[in-house]
Amino acid sequence: MASVCTIFAKLEQRRMREKSNFNLLRSIDSPDDLRKLSIEQLPCLCEELRHDIIEELSVNPGHLASSLGAVELTVALHYVYDTPYDRIVWDVGHQAYGHKILTGRRDSFCTNRKLHGIKPFPFPGESEYDTFCCGHASNSISAALGMAVAARIHGENRKVVAVIGDGAMSGGLAFEGINNTAGTPNDMLIILNDNNMSIDRSVGGMRQYLLNLTTNGTYNTMRYKIAQKLSQWGILNENRRKGIIRFNNSIKSVLTRQQNMFEGMDIRYFGPMDGHNVIELVRILRTIKEMRGPKLLHIHTTKGYGYKPAEKNATVWHAPGKFDPESGKILDTPKDAALPPKFQTVFGETLLELARQNPAIVGVTPAMPTGCSMNIMMKEMPQRTFDVGIAEGHAVTFSGGMAKDGLLPFCNIYSSFMQRAYDNIIHDAAIMKLNLVLCLDRAGLVGEDGATHHGAFDLAFLRPIPNLTIASPYDECELRRMMYTAQLPDKGTFVIRYPRGRGSVVDWRCPFEEIPVGKGRLLKDGRNIAVLSLGPIGTEAAKAIEIAETQADAQGRSISIAHYDMRFLKPIDTDLLREVGERFACVMTVEDGVVSGGLGSAVLEFMADNGYSPELKRVGLPDMFIEHGTVAQLREIAGMDAVSIAEKLLKFNI
Amino acid sequence: MASVCTIFAKLEQRRMREKSNFNLLRSIDSPDDLRKLSIEQLPCLCEELRHDIIEELSVNPGHLASSLGAVELTVALHYVYDTPYDRIVWDVGHQAYGHKILTGRRDSFCTNRKLHGIKPFPFPGESEYDTFCCGHASNSISAALGMAVAARIHGENRKVVAVIGDGAMSGGLAFEGINNTAGTPNDMLIILNDNNMSIDRSVGGMRQYLLNLTTNGTYNTMRYKIAQKLSQWGILNENRRKGIIRFNNSIKSVLTRQQNMFEGMDIRYFGPMDGHNVIELVRILRTIKEMRGPKLLHIHTTKGYGYKPAEKNATVWHAPGKFDPESGKILDTPKDAALPPKFQTVFGETLLELARQNPAIVGVTPAMPTGCSMNIMMKEMPQRTFDVGIAEGHAVTFSGGMAKDGLLPFCNIYSSFMQRAYDNIIHDAAIMKLNLVLCLDRAGLVGEDGATHHGAFDLAFLRPIPNLTIASPYDECELRRMMYTAQLPDKGTFVIRYPRGRGSVVDWRCPFEEIPVGKGRLLKDGRNIAVLSLGPIGTEAAKAIEIAETQADAQGRSISIAHYDMRFLKPIDTDLLREVGERFACVMTVEDGVVSGGLGSAVLEFMADNGYSPELKRVGLPDMFIEHGTVAQLREIAGMDAVSIAEKLLKFNI
Repeated sequence: MASVCTIFAKLEQRRMREKSNFNLLRSIDSPDDLRKLSIEQLPCLCEELRHDIIEELSVNPGHLASSLGAVELTVALHYVYDTPYDRIVWDVGHQAYGHKILTGRRDSFCTNRKLHGIKPFPFPGESEYDTFCCGHASNSISAALGMAVAARIHGENRKVVAVIGDGAMSGGLAFEGINNTAGTPNDMLIILNDNNMSIDRSVGGMRQYLLNLTTNGTYNTMRYKIAQKLSQWGILNENRRKGIIRFNNSIKSVLTRQQNMFEGMDIRYFGPMDGHNVIELVRILRTIKEMRGPKLLHIHTTKGYGYKPAEKNATVWHAPGKFDPESGKILDTPKDAALPPKFQTVFGETLLELARQNPAIVGVTPAMPTGCSMNIMMKEMPQRTFDVGIAEGHAVTFSGGMAKDGLLPFCNIYSSFMQRAYDNIIHDAAIMKLNLVLCLDRAGLVGEDGATHHGAFDLAFLRPIPNLTIASPYDECELRRMMYTAQLPDKGTFVIRYPRGRGSVVDWRCPFEEIPVGKGRLLKDGRNIAVLSLGPIGTEAAKAIEIAETQADAQGRSISIAHYDMRFLKPIDTDLLREVGERFACVMTVEDGVVSGGLGSAVLEFMADNGYSPELKRVGLPDMFIEHGTVAQLREIAGMDAVSIAEKLLKFNI
Repeated sequence: MASVCTIFAKLEQRRMREKSNFNLLRSIDSPDDLRKLSIEQLPCLCEELRHDIIEELSVNPGHLASSLGAVELTVALHYVYDTPYDRIVWDVGHQAYGHKILTGRRDSFCTNRKLHGIKPFPFPGESEYDTFCCGHASNSISAALGMAVAARIHGENRKVVAVIGDGAMSGGLAFEGINNTAGTPNDMLIILNDNNMSIDRSVGGMRQYLLNLTTNGTYNTMRYKIAQKLSQWGILNENRRKGIIRFNNSIKSVLTRQQNMFEGMDIRYFGPMDGHNVIELVRILRTIKEMRGPKLLHIHTTKGYGYKPAEKNATVWHAPGKFDPESGKILDTPKDAALPPKFQTVFGETLLELARQNPAIVGVTPAMPTGCSMNIMMKEMPQRTFDVGIAEGHAVTFSGGMAKDGLLPFCNIYSSFMQRAYDNIIHDAAIMKLNLVLCLDRAGLVGEDGATHHGAFDLAFLRPIPNLTIASPYDECELRRMMYTAQLPDKGTFVIRYPRGRGSVVDWRCPFEEIPVGKGRLLKDGRNIAVLSLGPIGTEAAKAIEIAETQADAQGRSISIAHYDMRFLKPIDTDLLREVGERFACVMTVEDGVVSGGLGSAVLEFMADNGYSPELKRVGLPDMFIEHGTVAQLREIAGMDAVSIAEKLLKFNI
């Protein structure tokens, strides 16, 4: 209930603020209202929209810089296209806050990312203007192509637009989409929103390629004139569209001495143009809108545009937390010294320490050096760290190639994005028993980023893969020990998964020490129930045990609960499980992941295979997509907080 | 033992045959021997190699056409490069038979794809010349880049070559690899083996793009002359390599009026050239070998080259089975009429029947229209079927886009390749509860294609995904019913998995009938043990039940076994399981997939959650990569054949 009250309070605050400001914006309840404005009013609307986003995000943290960069594009798209009949498919919802505000969610925007509030990313279930799920990068072109084909088959004259950033363009899925766009009859428009940044800077050949693409000023004029002449002479006509495109391309190539892969693939290319000139954007979109065949419009934008602090340092302002909009000062979170560190910091510092000792270690991350803290090693050892861009599959296979020839890669990928490298783990690592370390950051519940970002499935999808070692640290010191262990000789493909945020140990710089692979440990002994936990959720289990024992005492029951930290999901500690099977009639497993197929299932399998039949309760994420909210709120919903776990412990038949 | 005897017999046959022939080839026990030949002898060696492959494959079926097309390239690579010190990374092992024969496996080549014989695809564990696992397409560039980086970090002057077909080039992973090749310091050579075919014909923009790339005859000469002049004038030098490349590219662009995406990404481009002129190939490879920086050599080859029947119809001759090498007649398998049909045929015919009735149905397949029999619908409804090339992720997301706008895609992907679309299933289908059907062909053991191709993991990796329906038909009629059911309104994301090859029902054209989702059925009642099976492996379970009951009778024990066909892994039939929990103390699950996380685990979870504790045995694939052999042989190894299952049934404590 607390969060619902907060939401009402926030709505009221917002209404108050809006009264004095945002004259155009507050008249817009849907894109229909937007389309009533004159084109001259659009720059002013853009300003209002931008200020609204900045004001709101200063108190209600979210993804700032991308959305500021896409303000003009958003306004122009909804102004020119007949949404929701026409389809705008956003690639990565970070950029879509303006879209939300313009499509009926102006008032509820203050509930963005909050429990029961609007979702962090566009989602079809929330609004008819949200055409597709867009939490993970690079899917827009494929999805939009599907919609364009559906329109054609249904005989609808619907326009479909995919909006993709240059970062997302480095993903293989985007390329697969483009490759098929060229070969499938469709009238789709792809807008390449090029800011030369994904979250950190864009990398790779595609980035270089896009930087090189600039337009010769005389090109468009000349092309049209020549084409006009040829049409008059009967040489070109609409039926020979492909011929025209190739003709245009070759003229352009001659004039600009450049190659354009899009045109090479028979996709008509426009641009690059300034993505912050809303009037020009409207003009070109109106022109392009009715053209047949696949088209690509390349616009240049600045991440954080219109807010100087964000323009200057887009990485910091990607998702800055709370800030003072006037001064551009990011408000500090409470002093860190007294708190345990983030797992990310421990990973980053420890990786550097290990890399100093072990020259075979290299680091690989797909576009997340800052998020996962690999930037710490990157700074000292730029030759031994690789940001491969948004390309998770490549990150793993590339690591496999390095491992095959004697390097020891630490490849760090967020758990929910590791879903994109599933085959690569099986086929390019595990099957060859390659020595490499896969670090799954953001494992388990991540909080406000919601359903698409929870690392819910990794334990369940990794466990069936032969040859893998799968570990999860109880705390920061254990993370250090696991990282140390994983880089020792011949450890094979070694997965370490840990969550977003802080652990539980302030004094985390413990000495390196090998952990025996596949061995858990007893944290606390007991007589009646055995709790088996994996990873930092174990600290929640420990609290639950304390609560349950205390409550039982208060009720005059004496319940004594043992707590085992499994450390490894695979190989699972069979000696430990045998001991548990022999000693306990009541067993509970606790894991920060789906209960179908993870730790609980592994324990059940062992018990069944070895003739034990304890009463077994599995605590973990239920079989549903969990929404957004704080981690604490979501744990409560999933019944994984200490109090809920304690309740379940007390229900055992003792 | 039988198979080992067969292998010895085959080795002897081969030695006899070789005595009279293959004078050059039989002197080559390793690439060192090859490198002793004069360049003039290479065409003759290519002929011998080609004939050896044809002769062997005529009696020992395998992938013919790709390997014939790569003969000259294979010889040239091992001739020019210092293998195994230098690394050749094949993309898809289909093309690598010549490589096997030249690298110490000439005599054992007759055991290719047989149980305990050499592996169907190159694999590092088998030979030091095999640099990376290559059963799945598109991974060579990423892996080779890893090796090139390892060489650089280790200070080795090792050359690394990736050989990739144009089909594999349509995969997103290949693009991610190329994108990173451009941005990472390396001297790698990518050879694009372009035959305008993957298994069926190549598709998409990349194909068109490659077709358009041809070289102006005067280009190379002129480029070199101009570059020489500029170097003399001090304008260009090796330190400005990137500048030179761009310079070269722009000149080429002017001369040929073409765009080249590779050059646009700062990868030096050579070609296209004839990939069947071995002497020219040697010459150009020698020139390119010492050049710094990333390079791409584009060669044109003909799939099946040198064997007329295969050249004429490369799709049929991709893996033709046994044939008469003289006449080019493919030897018929025993007449089909008396046998049950293949599941593939039933899928293909049924899809067409349904598509005739339901105008929303469309078909999607990534490069497997013939393999999965979607070509049947494709022929009648070319506008409603989409071969998207080797691009599994796109296939699912594209289907998601179509589903979002009211079409009903049947997206058919082999189970082991579906591993590449894992995130797409979660993020672009299940989370939005989109109505689409994912057909997983080649689920379970596939036989001779081996470890990389078994559809072992799908049940385990799909089960944790919320909102999915996961079904597997007992026989051909059930497949038809499931396909019919899946296309009824609002069935959500519906997975149907079935194996390669024949089912068990000759008369398979049953009428369409809806199956209640999540409902299994009792096939045979019994008193002592309940066998719960999923999919066609259920027929093996049925045989096992018969054997076990008969043997028990013979031993004077009376054992009565019930058999349930679960039909659905998810939602699982809880009424059925409750009945089983109430009635049986002994339960066995049988599934054609890994036992960690699949049906057996689901049943264990239900029993634990609902307070039942039967003795439960799980039959399925063990936690290891299963090798190649016939399906019958492999089932025996995994303990999944009728006899092994019967033995396990008899071991229950009754």
